Amino acid sequence: MAMTRSSLPPPDWALYVITDHHAAAGRPLLDLVRAALRGGATVVQLRMKHGSTREMLALGQALHEMTRAAGVPLIVNDRLDVALALDAEGVHLGQEDLPAHLARPLLGPDRLLGVSVETVEQAEQARRDGADYLGVGDLFGTPSKPDAGPPIGLEALRAIARAVPLPIVGIGGVTLENAGAVIDAGAAGVAVISAVIGAPDPEQAARNLRAIVEQRRRRA
Amino acid sequence: MAMTRSSLPPPDWALYVITDHHAAAGRPLLDLVRAALRGGATVVQLRMKHGSTREMLALGQALHEMTRAAGVPLIVNDRLDVALALDAEGVHLGQEDLPAHLARPLLGPDRLLGVSVETVEQAEQARRDGADYLGVGDLFGTPSKPDAGPPIGLEALRAIARAVPLPIVGIGGVTLENAGAVIDAGAAGVAVISAVIGAPDPEQAARNLRAIVEQRRRRA
Repeated sequence: MAMTRSSLPPPDWALYVITDHHAAAGRPLLDLVRAALRGGATVVQLRMKHGSTREMLALGQALHEMTRAAGVPLIVNDRLDVALALDAEGVHLGQEDLPAHLARPLLGPDRLLGVSVETVEQAEQARRDGADYLGVGDLFGTPSKPDAGPPIGLEALRAIARAVPLPIVGIGGVTLENAGAVIDAGAAGVAVISAVIGAPDPEQAARNLRAIVEQRRRRA
Repeated sequence: MAMTRSSLPPPDWALYVITDHHAAAGRPLLDLVRAALRGGATVVQLRMKHGSTREMLALGQALHEMTRAAGVPLIVNDRLDVALALDAEGVHLGQEDLPAHLARPLLGPDRLLGVSVETVEQAEQARRDGADYLGVGDLFGTPSKPDAGPPIGLEALRAIARAVPLPIVGIGGVTLENAGAVIDAGAAGVAVISAVIGAPDPEQAARNLRAIVEQRRRRA
């Protein structure tokens, strides 16, 4: 029973929470995601850079049960095969993952396809290749990807939002302090790892972030 | 233009060569595979445990061009998504990869599905799940997987070959010295990494292995 786009309203990109074993700091990831969903996460991304495919699948199955119950899409990072095996609602691809133009036909028209971009050019390419939404960042410098390049900042986000008519989630060092500015710059939502999965109280952290996003959207 | 099973004769499993950056020891992998094909490799497996999906795809595209020209199937290890994106002829799954029963419907009926097994029970499960062939090993202890358990030996291969009517490639420490015994024990072919990709002369190594396999098959 997939929640495909044909049977569900378009996703709400307000608060996009990404799983990360490192940010969980030893706490059970499933508990943290459950808390994030209670706090108002609107999208969950399964991201697992290490471990076997079977381990990723097992975590994904548990997450998918949870996100289905919450009526929220589950999106799988990088591994299109795992997304298909889970019957997940979508896949998210970085610039070093499968190219979107190869992924789109494998996903079919109903699953969500997201692409990470840093520039207007990459964003336009992603749109031509069939992306449904964009992850734009690293905005502020992220503790989850210490090896990434310099942050691109809100000006880059604003330029992409003006140029490309796809929903954007802003990512990379998003906190309660800067989340409002991300929405003001043209994003539909914020994507977070540390700010929720690494928070002492993930439910409250999610609730606060969601509230800021909603407030700024109303203002826009 | 996929060489699918519907349009190609069944694969010849005689000499199944697996790519490995470590075994290549700094030599260009594509040159080594080209040499292996000249020497008589009948199947090539793309195996890449590290690096990005995009890197694996790029290597796969170059390999696929080569294997198509040689009329030999390309099989992708673990990454079903990469196999689909490459339009490769098949995928090979270990016990820690996607389960075969989830992979089979994603692959469709025409692509080859191989499963690594160590026991009769795993082999029967793989067959029920839709496997086309089995990789049986680690037979002799392999330098390519130093963290694997103890080798299972030829008796285990013989038991699996008697119990399960699927073609078997024997894997794990196969050399010119023991390749004949692998065929005598019931395998249709031998799968090698080091013995070809790590050989000083991969073309000659492939030629010698292929000759042994053919000779023992004729005798059987």
